[in-house]
Amino acid sequence: MSSTSTTNKAVFAITMGDPAGIGPEIAIKALSDCRIKENVIIIGDISVLNDIYPKLNVSKPLNRISSTGEFKGDRINVLSLDIISSDDFEPGKVSAKCGLAAFRYIEKSIEMAKAGTIAGVITNPINKESLHLAGINFPGHTEIFAEKTGVKDFSMLFLLRNVGVAHVTTHCSVRNAIDLISRDRVIATIHLLYRAMSQLGKKNPKIAVGGLNPHAGEGGLFGDEEIKYIIPAIDVCKKDGLNVSGPYPPDTVFMRAFKGEFDGIVAMLHDHGFVALKSLDFEHGVNITIGLPIIRTSVGHGTAFDLVNKGIASAESLIDAINAANLLYINRNI
Amino acid sequence: MSSTSTTNKAVFAITMGDPAGIGPEIAIKALSDCRIKENVIIIGDISVLNDIYPKLNVSKPLNRISSTGEFKGDRINVLSLDIISSDDFEPGKVSAKCGLAAFRYIEKSIEMAKAGTIAGVITNPINKESLHLAGINFPGHTEIFAEKTGVKDFSMLFLLRNVGVAHVTTHCSVRNAIDLISRDRVIATIHLLYRAMSQLGKKNPKIAVGGLNPHAGEGGLFGDEEIKYIIPAIDVCKKDGLNVSGPYPPDTVFMRAFKGEFDGIVAMLHDHGFVALKSLDFEHGVNITIGLPIIRTSVGHGTAFDLVNKGIASAESLIDAINAANLLYINRNI
Repeated sequence: MSSTSTTNKAVFAITMGDPAGIGPEIAIKALSDCRIKENVIIIGDISVLNDIYPKLNVSKPLNRISSTGEFKGDRINVLSLDIISSDDFEPGKVSAKCGLAAFRYIEKSIEMAKAGTIAGVITNPINKESLHLAGINFPGHTEIFAEKTGVKDFSMLFLLRNVGVAHVTTHCSVRNAIDLISRDRVIATIHLLYRAMSQLGKKNPKIAVGGLNPHAGEGGLFGDEEIKYIIPAIDVCKKDGLNVSGPYPPDTVFMRAFKGEFDGIVAMLHDHGFVALKSLDFEHGVNITIGLPIIRTSVGHGTAFDLVNKGIASAESLIDAINAANLLYINRNI
Repeated sequence: MSSTSTTNKAVFAITMGDPAGIGPEIAIKALSDCRIKENVIIIGDISVLNDIYPKLNVSKPLNRISSTGEFKGDRINVLSLDIISSDDFEPGKVSAKCGLAAFRYIEKSIEMAKAGTIAGVITNPINKESLHLAGINFPGHTEIFAEKTGVKDFSMLFLLRNVGVAHVTTHCSVRNAIDLISRDRVIATIHLLYRAMSQLGKKNPKIAVGGLNPHAGEGGLFGDEEIKYIIPAIDVCKKDGLNVSGPYPPDTVFMRAFKGEFDGIVAMLHDHGFVALKSLDFEHGVNITIGLPIIRTSVGHGTAFDLVNKGIASAESLIDAINAANLLYINRNI
């Protein structure tokens, strides 16, 4: 029976995320969804999954495995680290125990990806406060992955409805962000986005570059960063043969992309890209860390403590994140 | 017959906008729409309207009037300035003649509103380039209205799906915008938005204030403008009895408002508010100038030269702008 046999296909891993969040629920939902054709395991705690399982109306049973070689196609396969059980925490609440457990799942996933045991990691949300209570002082997943893989140059790509958004600046003040914008930094981000969108399946992707200032500076009237840095960067990338244009007014470039005009957008500020993305669609976003030696995609949302244990959390973002990881794996040599 | 008689009801005026844009078409569509119960005239050129009229499948006939006293309820009433006819310009093209005509309609509307002949003005889009070709060097409607009414303190409110967005800064570089943000400026914008949303029909409107920096500064980690200016401004407004809260991360506050949590948002940057608004809905936005001695609302979109003469332009934004003008008129003493 092919459906229950072990497999030579690439195996991906979902981390269970914070046990008190919606991670356990959406992991089960995603892996019982008929759209997921890939071999994907959960790295987490099977007792937590067992407790939420009966509320979810899914038919595929849970299956404890101790290695990817035990993967069975007709089960939801769980590499259980046996760190925590439902008695140890309150659903929807911040706790050190949950922070530590979530961190251990991530560590394990990175270790397996580095060893080549899994083809990529898809992360469920963690709670930063729980992480800090456990004495783990990373700002988030991205930085954990960067440190554990020894990488300094990495970037965050957000994917929504097949449109990718890469940010030239992210977690810093707007004042510092302006100072960080340089020709070289814009060039690097354009190249990064171009390659990622190619790997995600777009041939010669159309990249649009957003401006920094209102109306992309209105010809120098509202700021000169477009003239000094952004336009020269676009010119260089055009000479490199990339399908890139801009700078476009930040307030229309996203809408134009989502209507089909562009495949990817380079955004200058965190709250150009994220205002557009979160205003448009909160459920379907995928967050991808680029520049790592391993594949890492993530749901675009948080732990959603207010939705825990209600059975109503959406697994759409996680399903999209699995699909993105698979595309990045298939096209890893582009 | 009440439907054809003159009326004592307040009369509003739509300016026809740039004759080469979609203004003439959507003015006719809006005034033949059954949702418009108010008395509204068009200030423009009847020959241009006559030419587009047969393509629009509307039944209300056009009616030339020379004063609001001649208004007839079963007609589309046009105060024709007879400046331009369709032979004078090419639809969908920039021209000095169209720029001048559009400007004259605006001048007339302001003159009538100041005289109290009309209760308010609803403007259709103009083309800035055509305006400049005609030697008229205003950046846009807002500045024309401000100068012609002798006002220096005015602000722009954007209304979308009953949520109002007021900006602390608009048409300047991001670098200058940061320097413009002060406690007093934030307080003034909160009060302005609170009053406008009250006039637009919300009782004790819930106002949310967005931060400047990513994650609203993450407690000072990504910038201190929240701590220095924005939080103190919110505290003052709370003491003033306003229903105001924040600062919220710019990337989630809009989504939360559009899901019903807030009635109005104070945005620090042009491309916080406008990225959200234009990403969400380009057709239904209404632009309102606040602080004028007369009522002025506007469609939220431009001349849409690519849609001209196709009969497919949407009048939804204009209809919303008429409704907003009417609410501002009814509640003008709040």
